[in-house]
Amino acid sequence: MTFSELLQGILARVEGSIGIAIMGLDGLAIEHVQVPSKMDLGERVALIATSHATLLRNTMRMSSDTGVGALNELTLMSDNFLLVVRLIGREYFLIIILNPGGNLGRARFELRKAHLLLEKEFV
Amino acid sequence: MTFSELLQGILARVEGSIGIAIMGLDGLAIEHVQVPSKMDLGERVALIATSHATLLRNTMRMSSDTGVGALNELTLMSDNFLLVVRLIGREYFLIIILNPGGNLGRARFELRKAHLLLEKEFV
Repeated sequence: MTFSELLQGILARVEGSIGIAIMGLDGLAIEHVQVPSKMDLGERVALIATSHATLLRNTMRMSSDTGVGALNELTLMSDNFLLVVRLIGREYFLIIILNPGGNLGRARFELRKAHLLLEKEFV
Repeated sequence: MTFSELLQGILARVEGSIGIAIMGLDGLAIEHVQVPSKMDLGERVALIATSHATLLRNTMRMSSDTGVGALNELTLMSDNFLLVVRLIGREYFLIIILNPGGNLGRARFELRKAHLLLEKEFV
């Protein structure tokens, strides 16, 4: 299974999903896939994914400074989107972007499954 | 009901909770309460709550820059803690800190209820 197939499968299974990416913490996408009907949001999705790299680096620093421990997962709910981020090792992350009414629980479940598949390759 | 009573009620209802606070985005606590058996974590809880003020300010800036929209809620899972943060208006937030095995869904539910009670006072 290619990265693209893995991501497409997740988008198909998570209700309300818009886009998903495997990102480096340096802000560069390794692979990203979008729901075809949401292509108008493409640039925004890329921008959100890239911006999260910075946010995650800050959060990881804060977590280690305050004894919160290694960060595993982050969810963010805003007026326009739901986001779930799952760290893979210390250098990469998965991010999925949903409509505000999307299935957050399923998104978290799918990212955890994908994490297990990917962690062997991303260490 | 005082702020302290409100927070104590939430701690009592959320399994695995350690501490909870109403914070200003400037990093100053308005009220905070801890589970008595977890008092040894007191300083750490205060540090985590304060650090989140900075993190939230960064996240809110990123959200508005990238069109994610106004931030409502954030959850963070690390090796040592679960955290749920709920924004109240543009200046304040609720933060609850749980054990990794704590009841995240109940924590989110209780913070939403508290938000409804508090938003009239924090505008």
